[in-house]
Amino acid sequence: MRADAAPSYLLVPELADAGEALDLPAEERHYLFRVCRARSGEEAIATDGRGGLVRVSVEGEGAQGRVRVIAREHHRRTRRCWICCGAPEGSRADWLVEKLAELGIERFQPIEASRGRWSGGASRRRRWERLSTAGLRQSRQVWRMEIADPVPLAELDAATEPTRRILADAGGAAIHPDDFGKAGLSAVLVGPSGGLAPEERDSRLEAGWEARCLSDNVLRTETAALVAAAVWGVATGG
Amino acid sequence: MRADAAPSYLLVPELADAGEALDLPAEERHYLFRVCRARSGEEAIATDGRGGLVRVSVEGEGAQGRVRVIAREHHRRTRRCWICCGAPEGSRADWLVEKLAELGIERFQPIEASRGRWSGGASRRRRWERLSTAGLRQSRQVWRMEIADPVPLAELDAATEPTRRILADAGGAAIHPDDFGKAGLSAVLVGPSGGLAPEERDSRLEAGWEARCLSDNVLRTETAALVAAAVWGVATGG
Repeated sequence: MRADAAPSYLLVPELADAGEALDLPAEERHYLFRVCRARSGEEAIATDGRGGLVRVSVEGEGAQGRVRVIAREHHRRTRRCWICCGAPEGSRADWLVEKLAELGIERFQPIEASRGRWSGGASRRRRWERLSTAGLRQSRQVWRMEIADPVPLAELDAATEPTRRILADAGGAAIHPDDFGKAGLSAVLVGPSGGLAPEERDSRLEAGWEARCLSDNVLRTETAALVAAAVWGVATGG
Repeated sequence: MRADAAPSYLLVPELADAGEALDLPAEERHYLFRVCRARSGEEAIATDGRGGLVRVSVEGEGAQGRVRVIAREHHRRTRRCWICCGAPEGSRADWLVEKLAELGIERFQPIEASRGRWSGGASRRRRWERLSTAGLRQSRQVWRMEIADPVPLAELDAATEPTRRILADAGGAAIHPDDFGKAGLSAVLVGPSGGLAPEERDSRLEAGWEARCLSDNVLRTETAALVAAAVWGVATGG
């Protein structure tokens, strides 16, 4: 480990209190003791991906290695964003899921639309869960992005509870960071690679979604989703 | 072609004036007549990637197809951004180049730093040129992103002429859209996957680059570069 490297960052669904031993899932054990080659006396960080964070001390090495909690804290989430997204071309969604997880998006909600259907089912979901974990680890957050099951566009409102609803739409006003506010939940809806059908777009506007233009340029689905997440991140201070 | 589909979008280095025939490069001929299956009487758009734009009319089909210019216009660029970027992990730069081209970045400037070296040489460059063209076509812009040759970090200032220089740095103030201003040239420097070495960072600050934090989260190189480009795009109204 380089001298200025940050401590290893683990995802452990059930954390323990200060002074207690912390059980590591097999994958995290492998990561800590094989990949990071942690040694006795070193420290590491573990999160439950739901706001919990513990600092742990490594005891022993390799197969005999254990970790014990030094301190535990819990963070409360104040800024939340859901990205509701139609299917982009090919495997472009994989890249998108990783990036959204890095940027701290709370939920990735795939949308089935008339011009874009999701495929892949269970294997896609497993891949995305792995990418969400990789994004958490990379960005050293205490929240892991939730991967929701695809819902038909018409059922989206029943599946969401956001205070602000933004529809990515070239006909809308240019997006501004203030559109997101500093706290609370925002949802952004981005159409599939073929776009939303006119009646799908109109029904969202009638349902109270606000049209906002993300760029003068014509953006791919995954690029538009990423721009929205980036602007949300900067707007909400993080 | 779907009834509401936009006309085909071509990249033609040397445009012609209204009323003249327009010579298409072999690749664009293939794209227009084979991929898009253009038919006599249809219209298409061509740009030189340097601000020039012509509307053309298709005459004939397939191998006998020709195009003639209906109208020509020239756009002046007011908002400009260069992304100066250290090497990310693996092939992640390919994705980044495509996205930056879509977002209207003027120049992608790879940086050689002590903790990240670019590899690939001529084949990488050819791939990036193709991705830049794909991004232009996708986003229907009149400017094609320039791919610069990598320069050592110490020679960056000699290679740039921006009015605003922003260094992506976790120690800086949170970035704000106003950091970019509405017009003129901005440059953003993002370190390689291993980060800038402390002396590299300090030398940039001494040279007048302003440190700005792009996220509370730890972002990968390519994610940070994308966030900067997204915020620039929104800040400058497009």
